[in-house]
Amino acid sequence: MDEFSLIRKFFTPPLHRQDVIVGVGDDAAIVQVPPGFELAITTDTLIENLHFPTGAPAEAVGYKALATNLSDLAAMGAKPAWFTVSLTLPSADETWVAGFSKGLFQLAKTHNLQLIGGNLTRGPLSITIEAFGFTPPGNCLLRKGANAGDLIYVSGTLGNAAYALQLMRAKQTLSPLFFNAYYQPTPRIVLGEALLGIASSAIDLSDGLIADLEHLSRASEVSAVLTVEDLPISSELQKAVPEEKAWQLALTGGGDYELIFTVPPHHQAALNTLATFIDHPLTQIGMIVESVEHDVQVMRANGQPFNMAQKGFKHFE
Amino acid sequence: MDEFSLIRKFFTPPLHRQDVIVGVGDDAAIVQVPPGFELAITTDTLIENLHFPTGAPAEAVGYKALATNLSDLAAMGAKPAWFTVSLTLPSADETWVAGFSKGLFQLAKTHNLQLIGGNLTRGPLSITIEAFGFTPPGNCLLRKGANAGDLIYVSGTLGNAAYALQLMRAKQTLSPLFFNAYYQPTPRIVLGEALLGIASSAIDLSDGLIADLEHLSRASEVSAVLTVEDLPISSELQKAVPEEKAWQLALTGGGDYELIFTVPPHHQAALNTLATFIDHPLTQIGMIVESVEHDVQVMRANGQPFNMAQKGFKHFE
Repeated sequence: MDEFSLIRKFFTPPLHRQDVIVGVGDDAAIVQVPPGFELAITTDTLIENLHFPTGAPAEAVGYKALATNLSDLAAMGAKPAWFTVSLTLPSADETWVAGFSKGLFQLAKTHNLQLIGGNLTRGPLSITIEAFGFTPPGNCLLRKGANAGDLIYVSGTLGNAAYALQLMRAKQTLSPLFFNAYYQPTPRIVLGEALLGIASSAIDLSDGLIADLEHLSRASEVSAVLTVEDLPISSELQKAVPEEKAWQLALTGGGDYELIFTVPPHHQAALNTLATFIDHPLTQIGMIVESVEHDVQVMRANGQPFNMAQKGFKHFE
Repeated sequence: MDEFSLIRKFFTPPLHRQDVIVGVGDDAAIVQVPPGFELAITTDTLIENLHFPTGAPAEAVGYKALATNLSDLAAMGAKPAWFTVSLTLPSADETWVAGFSKGLFQLAKTHNLQLIGGNLTRGPLSITIEAFGFTPPGNCLLRKGANAGDLIYVSGTLGNAAYALQLMRAKQTLSPLFFNAYYQPTPRIVLGEALLGIASSAIDLSDGLIADLEHLSRASEVSAVLTVEDLPISSELQKAVPEEKAWQLALTGGGDYELIFTVPPHHQAALNTLATFIDHPLTQIGMIVESVEHDVQVMRANGQPFNMAQKGFKHFE
């Protein structure tokens, strides 16, 4: 099959939104942002053997490539609308593309998201997705905005994706929980939208809790203090590794695609109400403090500093 | 340098548009489309050793990566506004990134285009750019819309980029004209916007004249008839190769990034007026005819069919 046949067969959008005037198949897509709304735009690249192992299931790769982008939209409080896919493939492997497309559109359908364009090229396997969503005028979640005294929260549980990667590197089989944590993270779209007006800042957890909190701290010009005993660790991870190892994975592992956000004390009641409507935990893990360092301090509950091996993932170090 | 330092040093946007609410540096960009306008979105990937030779000048690669996307916006009649860059690099080569960034922003500045996001990853060299522009409500150029009797035009001259590639493959030095044709095509933005209300259909010339006209013919459900003697060939290419070879390059070579468009006969006067304001040639090369084939026929001026070696570039054949 040539590129045009592959596109026709596997990338014809299964749903059609009214705000898409021209979709896949012309030189560009033409879309309409709802009057008064602003547009959130994010993009993320997954490279084989860096963001997912060689030989990873195509369906899982398709899902994850879109999920990482939706996680960024969630961190802005945006409602997803459209996406584009730029896929570079070593060969026209119809089976692989069929699986990729299945995983991709499965997640897209969940969020009423329409594919509006992209391209297909021959080369080393990589996927760049760009995702688009709407935010109310003048109202989105930013990395800046956290103030001293704000409470730091995180959604879901931490460290499962990083542990899954370690298991894969050791050629061990993954249980469904760890497989899904690594390949099929749930973008926290509903939470992100609900946090508009409640959270003072937010970021999604991709590079690692400390690394991402450092981004938030620098943007907000504050520091963050975490207590390791408060980190939400799944019971499966608790069973699998010693406590200290679980904390390390939670702090530096990355790939959780949860939301980290800060809540001013006077919004805590609103957050508690929200938490009763959300089907995953929201856990307070620390507090924002004034400091010229704009860093992240990790403490034990007894007030001693927690000692760490490494901070987070950087591509060129 | 790590990825964050490289981004800070080389991808801090040199200009700031009022419609960019949140630019580079958060989980997503937030932008505003002007009230009443629609948004054109396009994306294109360049892979080393496929879309440009290994060892190509970084500055030229930066320019070309953006130019191919702006060419797609031009083919819709859109006014460019913003872009994102997803760059995958084998190593944190500061010299290469500096050159790439220089070429990229040189072209961006020409069109008042702001970088709003992207990412930097380690892997085999490739660049995916996504570009955004505005179109008036209900008024853009599409591949469909051409009718029997419409005249087929092309901007600029054809075949120079394909000839440049042949020279490079033969390890020969390029004259400035051929170097620029290959690496620094001029996106026909001004022309594209001016063709709104004049052209009945348009496409940009990337895969090759015949291949791209076939896309237009299929979308419009018509056929195209070209006359080879009418193809605009630069005097440099005429000097460099025999006539038949120049026609082959113009018909099938690709990479010209000119606009192919169709004009109803009653808009020909308007087009002639427009042509006097445009600093590059607009040449009539054929005509749209009714046909169930939806194909492209290439004729000699004497009415005989022109015989061709290959039609155009497909990635997986």
